[in-house]
Amino acid sequence: MTATDRTWTLERARALDAQDPIGDVRRSFLLPPGTIYLNGNSLGPLPATAAARVLHAVETEWGVSLSSGWSGLGWMEAPERLGDRIAPLIGAGPGEVLVCDTTSVALTKLLGAAVAARPDRHVVLSSTDNFPSDLYVAAGVARRAGAALRVVDRADLLTAVDELGRDLAACCLTQVDFRSGALLDLAALTDAAHRVGALALWDLCHSVGVVPVGCEENGVDLAVGCTYKYLNAGPGAPSFVYVRRELQASLENPVPGWLGHVAPFAFGLDWEPAPGIRKFMTSTPPVLALGALEAALDVFDGISIEQIRTKSKALGSLFVDVVMGAGVADLDLASPGLADDRGAQISLRHPRAPELLAAAARQGVVGDLRPPALCRFGLSPLALCFEDVFRGALAVVEAARAVG
Amino acid sequence: MTATDRTWTLERARALDAQDPIGDVRRSFLLPPGTIYLNGNSLGPLPATAAARVLHAVETEWGVSLSSGWSGLGWMEAPERLGDRIAPLIGAGPGEVLVCDTTSVALTKLLGAAVAARPDRHVVLSSTDNFPSDLYVAAGVARRAGAALRVVDRADLLTAVDELGRDLAACCLTQVDFRSGALLDLAALTDAAHRVGALALWDLCHSVGVVPVGCEENGVDLAVGCTYKYLNAGPGAPSFVYVRRELQASLENPVPGWLGHVAPFAFGLDWEPAPGIRKFMTSTPPVLALGALEAALDVFDGISIEQIRTKSKALGSLFVDVVMGAGVADLDLASPGLADDRGAQISLRHPRAPELLAAAARQGVVGDLRPPALCRFGLSPLALCFEDVFRGALAVVEAARAVG
Repeated sequence: MTATDRTWTLERARALDAQDPIGDVRRSFLLPPGTIYLNGNSLGPLPATAAARVLHAVETEWGVSLSSGWSGLGWMEAPERLGDRIAPLIGAGPGEVLVCDTTSVALTKLLGAAVAARPDRHVVLSSTDNFPSDLYVAAGVARRAGAALRVVDRADLLTAVDELGRDLAACCLTQVDFRSGALLDLAALTDAAHRVGALALWDLCHSVGVVPVGCEENGVDLAVGCTYKYLNAGPGAPSFVYVRRELQASLENPVPGWLGHVAPFAFGLDWEPAPGIRKFMTSTPPVLALGALEAALDVFDGISIEQIRTKSKALGSLFVDVVMGAGVADLDLASPGLADDRGAQISLRHPRAPELLAAAARQGVVGDLRPPALCRFGLSPLALCFEDVFRGALAVVEAARAVG
Repeated sequence: MTATDRTWTLERARALDAQDPIGDVRRSFLLPPGTIYLNGNSLGPLPATAAARVLHAVETEWGVSLSSGWSGLGWMEAPERLGDRIAPLIGAGPGEVLVCDTTSVALTKLLGAAVAARPDRHVVLSSTDNFPSDLYVAAGVARRAGAALRVVDRADLLTAVDELGRDLAACCLTQVDFRSGALLDLAALTDAAHRVGALALWDLCHSVGVVPVGCEENGVDLAVGCTYKYLNAGPGAPSFVYVRRELQASLENPVPGWLGHVAPFAFGLDWEPAPGIRKFMTSTPPVLALGALEAALDVFDGISIEQIRTKSKALGSLFVDVVMGAGVADLDLASPGLADDRGAQISLRHPRAPELLAAAARQGVVGDLRPPALCRFGLSPLALCFEDVFRGALAVVEAARAVG
């Protein structure tokens, strides 16, 4: 389909489903009957095998193996094992991704490491559009390191990198804007940072599982991301860190802890970091949550991120075509108009956004409010079919007309 | 019983069980048949209701409520709600405890806050016996703050506090020694720190749920602890922080994140901390793990920490009496001889400790090895009866004789 092909019918949506090479994966999720869940950017839906996997972790692993699970069941290695399964989704290699902590703590660690690696530079650059928690973290890290956080509009980032030049320690940016779903130019911004000798750190919370990041291809230095959005690992699931292989030896973990030690069970008095990505581990892995993550990652087996991106763009275009094609007064597209410029989320602006979302919810269509006027619809490409998105879009149009 | 009453029989152990006012609680745990689990200091056993509670969190909360769980199911408030349930176990009040992060990350936050609150002081004091991860964290925090970590033998701590005087920013100590189970004098050390104007930060990982800490009574300033040892919340369960009410307004969270913000969903660009303990929150609560913690804390309902301590000391005395009373060659007590001087763990030293533990394990008795020569036995007072500990002690004696 193209952006100009705006005549959508239920039959056409179903025809796309019939041809969808990854359409069967939708059955890997459990959703409440009658619900069209368009909030995968907030919390991914439940993979069908997650409950059994978590129950196994509780009853069999914890309940029967007890403390022998730490060594006997590979609990200690799970952060790297699961990291290696996330790696292909972000274009990283084995040994470059580690599951640990929460996104803000992970960001604190990696940005702290980046700033410490550029001690003669005094600025961290971010964008006013960045997720606020990232800005709180970045401001704190910068302040403690005697540096400053510079925050500019997204459009001014490339200029700011050049202006800051050799005073720029690191760029700290999010690939997909959490409000509009707009995709930043990760390749160009990473290149620009490298040209002035700075490090590029990316927050992939809204990219991982839907947008091909190409960490290696684009030379991304550092990245963090969460696993509870498009990776569908459950509420408050742990985050992950990516550290480019070439940087692992030189960067230091500013939050050292025993599980990043080269020999945690030698209980030596002095910190001696493990080789590779492991040094960025701090503390004990959350075994039950990692069980859910394992089940969630099973869903991605045999599917490439490029296939997901292709479907994701088509779903987004369908949604935008139907909603914007209806010509409802006061309903505006708050996302980029072209699929290539967006992540998996479509945002709409409406003066009565809360009422619009409530009306849609009464029809079983779940979106997300960002007050005062933003409606966000996160289209999880593996859990949704074209018919779902078509019906969801119609419900949004109807709701927008109803609240006027 | 007294420390000199060393004649133990199965009947006498059973008689104590018959009189045990909290003996019924043992049925609240599921343990593999034929196992006597004496490793509660490493990982607490499975509470009987945990699997159902976690399954509910997965299938009903996540699976059905989906993203509406953040507000509708109180996921966001769970860190404080569960913190308030831990509070009585450590002698803290409501609003003084928050469940978040892992122990080493939590310690990084609180020690960072403590050192920042004493900017004219340049030393953090700890003990060579402290858990090594705490020392790694403390060294890192001190270095970043331009301070130093001083580590002395446990017996020299009070002297060191006085010598450091107005240069001491904070003491960072663990109440129960992880190797020997020895109890530090929390009251005296906290007092000493206060006399020189320093803050007292305690790691309660090996105390919470078995030793009455008396945070308020003893004026403890800050504390961290884990929930997977004697609180029995499962492998890698989250940690908690305690911040004395009077300090909450003045201390700053050095790892700020959106969930500690006064209005996280206003998405303001600048960090503005929430009032009270909430400001020490950083990132999204781990909902599945908190379900297990909730079930684990249910077990403590209606039981006082003093009752638990009474039983814990009696169990430890029984174990020591039987094991040491047997007079096995080369088997030495590595814990203090008096119950008042120990936590809930008994450590033994034997030149063939690995073989000893393997022989005990073949009889279904699970202890923990700290190479080369230390055997640790963590006696979870709620999950064990006197008969269990009696049988476990006999098995250890037999194993020690067998490995010679």
